Amino acid sequence: MAFVSGYGRFALTILLFFLGQIPNAFPQSIIQSWPRNQASNDHDDVLYCDSWRFSVETNDAGYWSKIPARCLSFVRDYMNGDRYRSDSEVVAGNSLAFARSVEIAGDGRDAWVFDIDETLLSNLPYYESHGFGSETFDEKSFDEWVDLAEAPALPASLSLYKELEQLGFKIFLLTGRSEFQRNVTEKNLAYAGYKNWERLLLRGPSDQRKPAIVYKSEKRSDLVNEGYTIHGNSGDQWSDLMGFAIAQRSFKLPNPMYYIA
Amino acid sequence: MAFVSGYGRFALTILLFFLGQIPNAFPQSIIQSWPRNQASNDHDDVLYCDSWRFSVETNDAGYWSKIPARCLSFVRDYMNGDRYRSDSEVVAGNSLAFARSVEIAGDGRDAWVFDIDETLLSNLPYYESHGFGSETFDEKSFDEWVDLAEAPALPASLSLYKELEQLGFKIFLLTGRSEFQRNVTEKNLAYAGYKNWERLLLRGPSDQRKPAIVYKSEKRSDLVNEGYTIHGNSGDQWSDLMGFAIAQRSFKLPNPMYYIA
Repeated sequence: MAFVSGYGRFALTILLFFLGQIPNAFPQSIIQSWPRNQASNDHDDVLYCDSWRFSVETNDAGYWSKIPARCLSFVRDYMNGDRYRSDSEVVAGNSLAFARSVEIAGDGRDAWVFDIDETLLSNLPYYESHGFGSETFDEKSFDEWVDLAEAPALPASLSLYKELEQLGFKIFLLTGRSEFQRNVTEKNLAYAGYKNWERLLLRGPSDQRKPAIVYKSEKRSDLVNEGYTIHGNSGDQWSDLMGFAIAQRSFKLPNPMYYIA
Repeated sequence: MAFVSGYGRFALTILLFFLGQIPNAFPQSIIQSWPRNQASNDHDDVLYCDSWRFSVETNDAGYWSKIPARCLSFVRDYMNGDRYRSDSEVVAGNSLAFARSVEIAGDGRDAWVFDIDETLLSNLPYYESHGFGSETFDEKSFDEWVDLAEAPALPASLSLYKELEQLGFKIFLLTGRSEFQRNVTEKNLAYAGYKNWERLLLRGPSDQRKPAIVYKSEKRSDLVNEGYTIHGNSGDQWSDLMGFAIAQRSFKLPNPMYYIA
């Protein structure tokens, strides 16, 4: 910039300042995936990946094993930015609005079912270091993460959980985790701030080879047969919510990182 | 700018040029809803409205009668911009990928069910002049629009429709429109480029007061009883897809403008 005089340098400084500031007017998630020198590729990727996300969140895509390679930065930005938090909060708001409309019978049979992973607890710290769903799922390293019992609560779910408890719902936790993980799961739930659940249901030996949708439907069916009314069901997978003995209202939480059939 | 010397003026020109260009690096839909002087309100609205859209497209929100007032420009931009087209294309792609995996029996009993409004035909020209779902639904003016028989095809759905026909599926059109609208509906479908459907099913006198989810389930059930296998079902409403006699795979098309129970 040796050729630039005083005013010129001043104006260029202003220019660089503005160029640095403008991105802050836009959401972090969008900026992070649009480095300035590849804006049009990135525009295409964001457009495609947002549509891909629509198709997985509505279950239109059906089974998928990994996120599309071109959507890695999109998913990372979504999960780490405002959007995941905002989507989770709106779903929790929908859930609470419905819960408040339920007439609690007062016989202790009004139930709400929660899934655990990516519903009550967030495994984002694990997926941060494992490619946000872009790598093949590695059960061994995931189980080691589970054993740490350090998954944080999804804040919107923790607030909802407490409100439902206040309203008088009996809370059932229905997870694809194994009975062998009962202790660490209870420890992690307590660590994250959850308490007073009615029952924690994990996969026993006879459940191990069942698809999640069958295993979870059977467990809900058992609850119905015990006399519970399942008013609400919250889960990040369609296999948490569909099948049989489905709840009066089901609430699909966002999860663009993995799919469980 | 009288105080600015030659180089300074040059640099300021560059600055203004860049300030003018940067927004073009971002998608139209986002720009349209972010005038520079109210960027932060609009950022909040876009964040909220995108989450609201998640909650309605996943059916988490349940019944709703009008789009939130603060989401009018968001819905307008979504419908008129790249995102609605892109979302529709990805869903059509999902549908076709599944359709190609189906083993066609060759007995003429392989069925695919399509809804009509916002699935095969787009009523966007009507909603453009009626607030994009922000106004109370006015049956009279909508029926007048239907009578014009000028709704264009959703391009992704028209392509899918033709591909399914080629693959050997029998196509059933199952709509909430009334038998009184049969002629104009056939005329509109032909105008939009659809032909060779197996049957067009509309609400008869005995269907008029049924919720869409019941009416449509009953009609699908009739098809199953006739011996058809309903492999796929495409609709923009969850009431097109859920209930009983559901298809092997259901495909939820985007529609953030209205909800039919």
